[in-house]
Amino acid sequence: MTKTVISSAKQEITIGFDQPFCVIGERINPTGRKLLAAEMAAGDYSRVEADAIAQVEAGATMLDVNAGIPMADEPQILADSIQLVQSVVDVPLAIDSSIVEALEKGLSVYQGKALVNSVTGEEERLEVVLPLVKKYGAAVVAISNDETGISEDPNVRYEVAKKIVERAEDYGIPREDVVVDPLIMPVGAINLAGRSALDLIIRLRDELKVNTTCGASNISFGLPNRHGMNAAFLSMAAGAGMTSAIMNPLHSEEMTAIMGANVMNGVDPECRTWISRFREPAAEGAAGGRERRTNRRRRA
Amino acid sequence: MTKTVISSAKQEITIGFDQPFCVIGERINPTGRKLLAAEMAAGDYSRVEADAIAQVEAGATMLDVNAGIPMADEPQILADSIQLVQSVVDVPLAIDSSIVEALEKGLSVYQGKALVNSVTGEEERLEVVLPLVKKYGAAVVAISNDETGISEDPNVRYEVAKKIVERAEDYGIPREDVVVDPLIMPVGAINLAGRSALDLIIRLRDELKVNTTCGASNISFGLPNRHGMNAAFLSMAAGAGMTSAIMNPLHSEEMTAIMGANVMNGVDPECRTWISRFREPAAEGAAGGRERRTNRRRRA
Repeated sequence: MTKTVISSAKQEITIGFDQPFCVIGERINPTGRKLLAAEMAAGDYSRVEADAIAQVEAGATMLDVNAGIPMADEPQILADSIQLVQSVVDVPLAIDSSIVEALEKGLSVYQGKALVNSVTGEEERLEVVLPLVKKYGAAVVAISNDETGISEDPNVRYEVAKKIVERAEDYGIPREDVVVDPLIMPVGAINLAGRSALDLIIRLRDELKVNTTCGASNISFGLPNRHGMNAAFLSMAAGAGMTSAIMNPLHSEEMTAIMGANVMNGVDPECRTWISRFREPAAEGAAGGRERRTNRRRRA
Repeated sequence: MTKTVISSAKQEITIGFDQPFCVIGERINPTGRKLLAAEMAAGDYSRVEADAIAQVEAGATMLDVNAGIPMADEPQILADSIQLVQSVVDVPLAIDSSIVEALEKGLSVYQGKALVNSVTGEEERLEVVLPLVKKYGAAVVAISNDETGISEDPNVRYEVAKKIVERAEDYGIPREDVVVDPLIMPVGAINLAGRSALDLIIRLRDELKVNTTCGASNISFGLPNRHGMNAAFLSMAAGAGMTSAIMNPLHSEEMTAIMGANVMNGVDPECRTWISRFREPAAEGAAGGRERRTNRRRRA
């Protein structure tokens, strides 16, 4: 059974088929968040701190930290953000950048075993990112595209993932430390994107025997009721063997789908997490709903 | 590809792996509905009529009709209900009774090819129900329990299903006219009930190559947030190959999960059903939500 262990100084988590789904909070990312980008570029990390705390409170197992701000000193900002986040929450982090210097600087200040996000199947990337992953004893997200781009053919994406896993092994990185991102396409643009993603997830689990992750909300791009669509996708993906996702833990529909999938997959013993989230007064703010709050008053 | 065709006088529907999930509305059932039971026993079918119309409007593909009222003339009430329902809606029906005379009387008045609900693996049931199914050219729900009860072992349930399918073939009922109910256990009582149900659904699809159905809401019995749990189960089950469910189409969380699963399974071409349900003003009443209604006003 493939187990990917990621840690901070204070916490160790395991991504695996017999584990609760790993929710990697995506909020600390200035892409498309102008205000956050401006603040981070100016050295103001108050929103980073608030986002870190809110995501962990909402149930994130890990947090992704990205500092991709045009014209800014990304390596320094990423390192600062990681140190700040590690000072306020205990969960392990994914260090997210397309700039190798930023990944290296982030890794150099990180306390624990990080998840590097990410390497692709492009030769140039493999040759610089994998040695770094090995040097710091990290795990890595392997994105299944290469020099030829993102194939619509899931078999090609499978082969790219296989190549990355094998190359990682050449560098001394064990298979369990490679978490494959099969690349989720918007189902509004490619009608069979959902089914082919699910079939690819099943193959990655059964044949390549790797853990998987994805940017879950891509699936619903351009469609109405995105949360409802993301929720259906996430529970189906978890049922097919997806073991983590980079997602927004503040959205209750998606989190309910994940928690329901954990129960269905038999990884929520005695449904304890489900019951405490939806029945316990302490969790009611997050679960929302006037009905539940009324019950609370009755019980008190 | 297994296709189960069910029809009314005016409509033909297909249950199959390449078809949208078949939603069999469960509301016309006096079990646990005292008022409905009393009305039906007294010959008042106004609520049956209203339930039929509401379920079809909410998106039911078929309706289940049950008249199981203690001390009442079930065969007559079932036949009357079927005739009434067929006079107000066009969707095909499942004729639901544990009393063979009621099934026969129901079949005798039914217009089209019905789904008989149900036969078990008990010898006594097989010998009386299957000839009836054959005589009327109907399809049948096969419940995977037998004289020994409901096994917690999914392999035993698989074998019971296989036996019913083979026995049906002996009676001249083709495999595609047997829709297997793998029996969904409450996950609150049996922690692995979800995973074992999903694995059984996969086997029934891949090995026995039959369509499947279930009483979906059993999964969440005794747990809080039943709709959220049912929704996760339904989308995962549809992802694993479940092709229909007997369920309440008036619950929007469950219906959203089904519609999302249809998109993911590639059986909602161009996401047309999804988009029309969640974007078109005409469908907003069903989808509910103040936010959507506000949008409607803005657009008008």
